[in-house]
Amino acid sequence: MADNGSILTSCIIFYLSIGAAIFQILEEQNWKNAAENYVKEKEEFRRTYNLTDDALNKILQVVSEAAGQGVAITGDSQRNPWDWGNSFIFTNSIVTTIGYGNIAPRTNGGRIFCILFGLCGIPLCLVWVSEMGSFFGDRAKRLSGVLIEKGVSVKKVQFICIALFLLWGLLMHLVIPPFVFMYMENWTYLEGFYFCFITLTTVGFGDYVAGVNPALRYNAIYRVLTELWIYMGLAWLSLFFSWNVHMVVDTHKVLKKKWQKHRHR
Amino acid sequence: MADNGSILTSCIIFYLSIGAAIFQILEEQNWKNAAENYVKEKEEFRRTYNLTDDALNKILQVVSEAAGQGVAITGDSQRNPWDWGNSFIFTNSIVTTIGYGNIAPRTNGGRIFCILFGLCGIPLCLVWVSEMGSFFGDRAKRLSGVLIEKGVSVKKVQFICIALFLLWGLLMHLVIPPFVFMYMENWTYLEGFYFCFITLTTVGFGDYVAGVNPALRYNAIYRVLTELWIYMGLAWLSLFFSWNVHMVVDTHKVLKKKWQKHRHR
Ligand SMILES: [K+]
Ligand SMILES: [K+]
Repeated sequence: MADNGSILTSCIIFYLSIGAAIFQILEEQNWKNAAENYVKEKEEFRRTYNLTDDALNKILQVVSEAAGQGVAITGDSQRNPWDWGNSFIFTNSIVTTIGYGNIAPRTNGGRIFCILFGLCGIPLCLVWVSEMGSFFGDRAKRLSGVLIEKGVSVKKVQFICIALFLLWGLLMHLVIPPFVFMYMENWTYLEGFYFCFITLTTVGFGDYVAGVNPALRYNAIYRVLTELWIYMGLAWLSLFFSWNVHMVVDTHKVLKKKWQKHRHR
Repeated sequence: MADNGSILTSCIIFYLSIGAAIFQILEEQNWKNAAENYVKEKEEFRRTYNLTDDALNKILQVVSEAAGQGVAITGDSQRNPWDWGNSFIFTNSIVTTIGYGNIAPRTNGGRIFCILFGLCGIPLCLVWVSEMGSFFGDRAKRLSGVLIEKGVSVKKVQFICIALFLLWGLLMHLVIPPFVFMYMENWTYLEGFYFCFITLTTVGFGDYVAGVNPALRYNAIYRVLTELWIYMGLAWLSLFFSWNVHMVVDTHKVLKKKWQKHRHR
């Protein structure tokens, strides 16, 4: 890591610092406006409803605590965040390491079980996803075998395979899903796109989670398909990275051979 | 994936389903109590402060929207979640794919930049962390070289190295840090332990995040060290997995050799 390592380290510190400054520029004003607005509205409530400072603070304290326990603070109908369906989405978010955190265990028992569950579940999921990836990879190889047998040149087949693979990934995991989410979740296209990216990179902020809006009634099939879609995306990424490694290695081999030939001449 | 794959798939579906049921058992009652409590307290506020249903709902709507914009709903002093320090912790949470989500971009510009930032940052971080991992691995190899030269048997050296490596990981990344967090963040030991596990697996629910409690004053050094500690943990994990792969491959080779010898006899 001697010299290369320090360059890389400087690079990443620089990248993070600049990124932080840009986020500050982009987001700070929006937050300030919201905070100012909130202070004004609190003041208005105090006047309109004749509340003392103390009374309003007491109300807000209770609301904040309820929100911390996962209780929906507005509306009278409560949708249970820990029914089996929501718990299932939660377990999926642990093993994939997406961890939306829209719900998270609040009891000691739940937290201990969460640790134990992740300890076995995360490796299990990793193995499963890479298995799925190599399964799809094998199918692609078979397809290319059929094409080569039919007399298409190897270079052309390779090109077709890679193009189809990339196109599939782009369309099925970034371009088309936001339209589905626009319809099912009432998000904008950008919100849907942002959700897809944040989910499939396993960042999972949890500001947008598909299938858990308490104000909407979902079809169970839609919720299952969403989870399946996440795994398909992770499998695609796993295949993408293993293929990339293969290609880098292959290119390296080819270059080495050429270089050796050149040398022997 | 033919048969092995379907067994694995059934396994993971079973694991997730059972896990969901257990989380439901562990967490549902706690949520129900909190929700009932909240309904009662709302009712009490209505009576005590003479608020109509409509008025309270209006207040709660405003509070909910403010919370959605990242505004702290209780207390009068607002701590800026998008100052440079907090933004820096946020950029770290993107590139490591931890994605706590305690703050997340709310503007369209911020979201688009977040996608672009992650697109380059996540691979960069991955490379950096694995470089760090192999750097530490090299140091360990050197140490074992010195020990072997000093006449310690190879088996003993291997054992010492692996034991030290595992002990380091356990102590520095799971057992000791919760004590630090108990002191700095006023968490219980279990909360600190849960935070360590959820962070280093990159799940990152965001219910506990070190260094961002608006009610506390932090030392800048503590916040930087926390981020560094996260990278050290990820590097340790990267080394752990690459070593594991090595060991599996080595064992496989040894077994193959033995088997071939056996065959030739
Ligand atoms: K997360
Ligand atoms: K995550």
